[in-house]
Amino acid sequence: MPRRPDFNGRTLREACLDEAVAIIAESGIESLSLRDVARRLGVSHQAPYKHFPSRDHLLAEVVRSAFDTFAAHLDARPRGATAEADLAALGQAYLAYALAHPLAYRLMFGTRLPDVAAHPAMLHSARHAFALLREALGRMRAEQGARPEPGAMELDALFIWTSLHGLASALQTSAMATLALPPAVLAATLSHTLQRIGAALTAPVPQA
Amino acid sequence: MPRRPDFNGRTLREACLDEAVAIIAESGIESLSLRDVARRLGVSHQAPYKHFPSRDHLLAEVVRSAFDTFAAHLDARPRGATAEADLAALGQAYLAYALAHPLAYRLMFGTRLPDVAAHPAMLHSARHAFALLREALGRMRAEQGARPEPGAMELDALFIWTSLHGLASALQTSAMATLALPPAVLAATLSHTLQRIGAALTAPVPQA
Repeated sequence: MPRRPDFNGRTLREACLDEAVAIIAESGIESLSLRDVARRLGVSHQAPYKHFPSRDHLLAEVVRSAFDTFAAHLDARPRGATAEADLAALGQAYLAYALAHPLAYRLMFGTRLPDVAAHPAMLHSARHAFALLREALGRMRAEQGARPEPGAMELDALFIWTSLHGLASALQTSAMATLALPPAVLAATLSHTLQRIGAALTAPVPQA
Repeated sequence: MPRRPDFNGRTLREACLDEAVAIIAESGIESLSLRDVARRLGVSHQAPYKHFPSRDHLLAEVVRSAFDTFAAHLDARPRGATAEADLAALGQAYLAYALAHPLAYRLMFGTRLPDVAAHPAMLHSARHAFALLREALGRMRAEQGARPEPGAMELDALFIWTSLHGLASALQTSAMATLALPPAVLAATLSHTLQRIGAALTAPVPQA
């Protein structure tokens, strides 16, 4: 792809992605349009279509990039001494990233794409991030000598993820603030959630 | 408040609320403005200000109404035979409502209000919904003869809520679809989550 120095050293494709993130940060995902991207970059309405067949393809590429950065952060976590401690470390890394990068988090988990199957690169990156969790859980089950039945590992990985996701989401919207909880409760909620998830996972799992 | 038959039998205030919901459904929460509400109702730009000092006040009233309807649904759940079964029934009622009413759910838990303290009626309704959960949990702890230390009940109620919230959110965005999980896993995820939450709550709780 030829470099286009008229976008501050970026290609048109890169400039479109940056502009898409800027629009979403300013006005929300619903506001993103290829027309608006083109207008802000001072190019013709047709220009972004050279790289993105539709607004959803542009959005999917922004989401893919967010997943890749997120997965790299999770992969770079300080490893726990045991598989169980490492799973807890993964949970901590997840929550820390979510709270430090609310826009990236919203892109990954708050986006509504009408047809996810049309965006295989995004799907690949999203599944890679989930696989990191599933693998950490699998190592813990192996450490415990457990042989979960088919599906049980996915269900527990989903439970871990959605529990972390719910806490991250509640902390990022007005939802938590509306409850006006005592500061001591708020300060303890991350570690309490990780502890309760750990407790849930000690319950019997269907064996193969 | 005088009835205004020119809004199909609704007052201007009621018509503004309905129009706000319609705008949010069509274009997202970020798109809501009092100017747009006035334009769609064919009234002057100033008219909605008689009832709502700002766009955020209008939004807060929409959110309050969603919380009231939600709390009434939770309150009308079939009661469980024991306090533990009733807590599970509450979780089921929560998830069923979330999946059946995605817009109302997004309004309650996906809205970003810059200053929640400015909307006391909304806060009251949100806290009432949370109190239903806290009370059901309190009845279960009492049934168990447990006397949790201060804060422990709030932390567990938060854990329950955020875990349910994360699952409901993941099912409503593209997040879950990206993982392309086997249908059997997806079919089991609600009951598995409720079971894992139950298991988490059987772990020791700090006693007063």
